[in-house]
Amino acid sequence: MRKVYVNGDFKNEDEAKVSIFDRGLLFSDSIYEVTSVIDGKLIDFNHHMKRLDRSMTELKFKSFINHDEILEFHRKLIEFNNLKEGMIYTQVTRGVVDRSFDMPKDVIKPTVLAFTQEKKILESDAAKNGIKVMTLEDMRWKRNDIKTTQLLYASMAKSEATAKGFDDAWMLRQGYITEGSSNNVWIVKGKIIMTRHSDNLILSGITREAVLKCAKDLGYEIVTKNFTLQDAQSANEAFITSATALVTPVVKINTSKIGGGKPGNFVKALRAEYIKQALETAI
Amino acid sequence: MRKVYVNGDFKNEDEAKVSIFDRGLLFSDSIYEVTSVIDGKLIDFNHHMKRLDRSMTELKFKSFINHDEILEFHRKLIEFNNLKEGMIYTQVTRGVVDRSFDMPKDVIKPTVLAFTQEKKILESDAAKNGIKVMTLEDMRWKRNDIKTTQLLYASMAKSEATAKGFDDAWMLRQGYITEGSSNNVWIVKGKIIMTRHSDNLILSGITREAVLKCAKDLGYEIVTKNFTLQDAQSANEAFITSATALVTPVVKINTSKIGGGKPGNFVKALRAEYIKQALETAI
Repeated sequence: MRKVYVNGDFKNEDEAKVSIFDRGLLFSDSIYEVTSVIDGKLIDFNHHMKRLDRSMTELKFKSFINHDEILEFHRKLIEFNNLKEGMIYTQVTRGVVDRSFDMPKDVIKPTVLAFTQEKKILESDAAKNGIKVMTLEDMRWKRNDIKTTQLLYASMAKSEATAKGFDDAWMLRQGYITEGSSNNVWIVKGKIIMTRHSDNLILSGITREAVLKCAKDLGYEIVTKNFTLQDAQSANEAFITSATALVTPVVKINTSKIGGGKPGNFVKALRAEYIKQALETAI
Repeated sequence: MRKVYVNGDFKNEDEAKVSIFDRGLLFSDSIYEVTSVIDGKLIDFNHHMKRLDRSMTELKFKSFINHDEILEFHRKLIEFNNLKEGMIYTQVTRGVVDRSFDMPKDVIKPTVLAFTQEKKILESDAAKNGIKVMTLEDMRWKRNDIKTTQLLYASMAKSEATAKGFDDAWMLRQGYITEGSSNNVWIVKGKIIMTRHSDNLILSGITREAVLKCAKDLGYEIVTKNFTLQDAQSANEAFITSATALVTPVVKINTSKIGGGKPGNFVKALRAEYIKQALETAI
């Protein structure tokens, strides 16, 4: 039985609960982070904490959670659950208060919860063979730069994709690809790497930032620029980045094979470089 | 201490909880309804149930909740809490399952929760004096026809409005007013009543439907048509409808007074007519 974390306590997963009056449940007034664990160590923890703070600031949460405290329960969850490879999910909601669209004027105690999930990260099938994506309209709200739990559309998109035999969905807004259901999107044309520029319509990924550096280290030119479905389908290579996908090749977009339907050499090199740098800084 | 309802049990409000793995909490994969209670009776209950079913269908929930069962816990909540006037909030989530963007393929048991809130509905200050609204951009997702708990932006909008001395926010998308934070919007020009046409960008309000009938009964012509901020600011009267606001006058939009800053005769008559018809069919 997994041990999970809720508001300072470690509980068995079937006993971990929050109030029905939690604003995370009633209003999606809540944010989260997912940190990868490899060899029992946390990848890019400090950047995830910075983004957690940013999300709380953007939503005008009145309390912050101490990063050392978060690091401590992360370490304990890894220990209790003997987690070697996978992720830790952490969610912070505004807290518990009687239901009202008008946010509480008083400072209320945020709800903090976290749990582990085991997952093959380094040697996944997706990394080896690449994934297939389909496109659909991006119908999400216009503040995807905040990592909130308003994830219903992303979940609907992912589910529609898997029901149709794809691995994920890429979302299109006004002709440009924004994001995958929970990852940033990239294409490679010759020596140029393109990823969507970071604005209010996408999440500025922690892995995206690290990969931008890795690509430079490998001598590639990077253009942060919106691209269309046609750009993507005519690319030499394509890939996604996220905390748990790391760098994962995309080998098919709708009916078009990319790179002949096999992961390309650049994405393999980039994934290897990212893993090397990530493990060097893991804590 | 309020008694609330969770998954078949009545609990004290401070003991009512859901799992941290509930998809309502993790993915906003959840819908709700709010039914008004006047004189201990439920207003428009059957229409709320029909809409609950529609929301569940749109989200491809695999289970339905029996309406008689819902009616039974509504009646018990009214009795236990001695509720004369206010509302009952009911939420249904897809249920509890280990976290994944890909929705569960198996049928899982939905989470059902409900609680009462006391509120002055018939004799509110807002109804007597009217409310002031400000406008801001509608940044919500594009499926507001489904009554989900993805309410963060609506809550941010309401809070921004009250912080600036207004009662609510009206949202603008591509130049047209869509909705208030939790209500439908209407304006009156001469003998013509205008309300935004019902599409994927607004909720098709239960009270909106009832009020359309009331307006006809009073001999007014109704046009369901998008209108702009300029249309609204030059209107003779303006109002909102919702389950708990019923018909509530709007007397100021941004810096413009409507009807000299006082509720107009039409909105007063319409409110009276709506209350008369609602009480006739209350159960």
